[in-house]
Amino acid sequence: MRLAIQQFVPEFGAVEGNRERLAAAVEAAPEAAAIDLLVAPELAFTGYRFRDRAELERLAEPVPGPTTEALVALARRLDLHVVAGLAERDGERVYNAAALVGPAGVVGRYRKVHLFADERRLFDPGREPWPVLRVGDVPVGLMICFDWIFPEAARTLALGGAWVIALPANLVLPHCQSAVVTRAIENRVFIALSNRAGADRREGLEALRFTGQSRIVGPDGEVLVECERDEAAVRAVEIDPALAADKTLASGNDIFAERRPALYGALTRPPGNGA
Amino acid sequence: MRLAIQQFVPEFGAVEGNRERLAAAVEAAPEAAAIDLLVAPELAFTGYRFRDRAELERLAEPVPGPTTEALVALARRLDLHVVAGLAERDGERVYNAAALVGPAGVVGRYRKVHLFADERRLFDPGREPWPVLRVGDVPVGLMICFDWIFPEAARTLALGGAWVIALPANLVLPHCQSAVVTRAIENRVFIALSNRAGADRREGLEALRFTGQSRIVGPDGEVLVECERDEAAVRAVEIDPALAADKTLASGNDIFAERRPALYGALTRPPGNGA
Repeated sequence: MRLAIQQFVPEFGAVEGNRERLAAAVEAAPEAAAIDLLVAPELAFTGYRFRDRAELERLAEPVPGPTTEALVALARRLDLHVVAGLAERDGERVYNAAALVGPAGVVGRYRKVHLFADERRLFDPGREPWPVLRVGDVPVGLMICFDWIFPEAARTLALGGAWVIALPANLVLPHCQSAVVTRAIENRVFIALSNRAGADRREGLEALRFTGQSRIVGPDGEVLVECERDEAAVRAVEIDPALAADKTLASGNDIFAERRPALYGALTRPPGNGA
Repeated sequence: MRLAIQQFVPEFGAVEGNRERLAAAVEAAPEAAAIDLLVAPELAFTGYRFRDRAELERLAEPVPGPTTEALVALARRLDLHVVAGLAERDGERVYNAAALVGPAGVVGRYRKVHLFADERRLFDPGREPWPVLRVGDVPVGLMICFDWIFPEAARTLALGGAWVIALPANLVLPHCQSAVVTRAIENRVFIALSNRAGADRREGLEALRFTGQSRIVGPDGEVLVECERDEAAVRAVEIDPALAADKTLASGNDIFAERRPALYGALTRPPGNGA
């Protein structure tokens, strides 16, 4: 499988223009024709720095909808699958979502569970755990940005059978880029972290500058490909995703078979219940 | 609280000599009198490279026993608490254990749950989760070495109220030293990783070389103090352990209050049960 990350700089609010620029950048990448799965950033079409819920609602759209239709068209032209983050409207609710689309349409979707900072007053939190979807024979899990700090997110995906975790992000701090090495090692999976670059500068709101440094990490924690802090880029690497099916270390330890779930009860106990 | 790590090089099998050298090194450290809690390595008195179970049984000892008595004597002389790893014999069973002792005696003990490589044919696995004990008012959690790769271990301790995690280790790979940064950040705790240095060279057995680089990490992932790869050393740092009581990031997110245990069910499901 040829796995790619796209580090992208959206223009705030220019949803249609961002769709076009994102697709054009993928098509212009030297390895475009060889990519099997491309991971694009969180909120790649709206930008991040919403003034208020009303502005978010105006820019959000259904899934399937115009953005996923544009991604399906891209997937058909290049015969690939894409994970991208977008603002999803579903009736009265608005989610910080990621969709997996392929030539045949929308394969599945994830609605961000762990909302960061102001996202909590803008978005509704997702109510379903992290999904494992299929790209051909390869189980691909979806999580978004701040989910990284909760080890339960990547763990849920890996226990659910994901070999590759797609992690669209809009990171303002640098911790996640190193933490995904730990996430890859502890779960023996591939992780494709696609962060955005640039800044959202909006009048009357503090500017946010994003930290780029998107990377693909392998099950031994090796960084297979990465981006600089400020660039827009598409980077790809050939991986053998089935390596993630084997949870055995060189020591002989199978770190999944040797888990001791009977001793992990504190993790699923509701707060304040003797934890 | 003055928190210290002792990076130490035991001589294989010389249990009594190691007890004396370990204590002498602490007493000779310039800051010895100021230390409140010292963390020493895993299996600090026997060494690591046991030929077989019979040899381990011969070198293991009960808790309380001669080694913890020596540690209590050290704790009284310096008015401090010590966490150290040792081979614990309890009837027919032998555990890779860590004990917390203070001037008043043994405070508590942990028996390693996740055994690494050959440890699985030498030791019995612990059957209790990671304990949170007290050093004065400070809740201190115990885990050992290979537990680091299972995010559930540090998570269980932090959810159980630990502010400081003592992590005695005998590491042969370098991943743990960087992973403890992630463990500190994701749980907002202090972690005192005390690794051994040097090598166990035993006739007829492949030599194992340990990676040193013991470190104390704070709740923001900052490395507060660390050791070189090959040195024997005692390093200490003044910390405010109560910082670990506050799980709130600069973003306003309380990463414990915002956990979603109802979505984490996969983590405690027995294997093969639809996970």
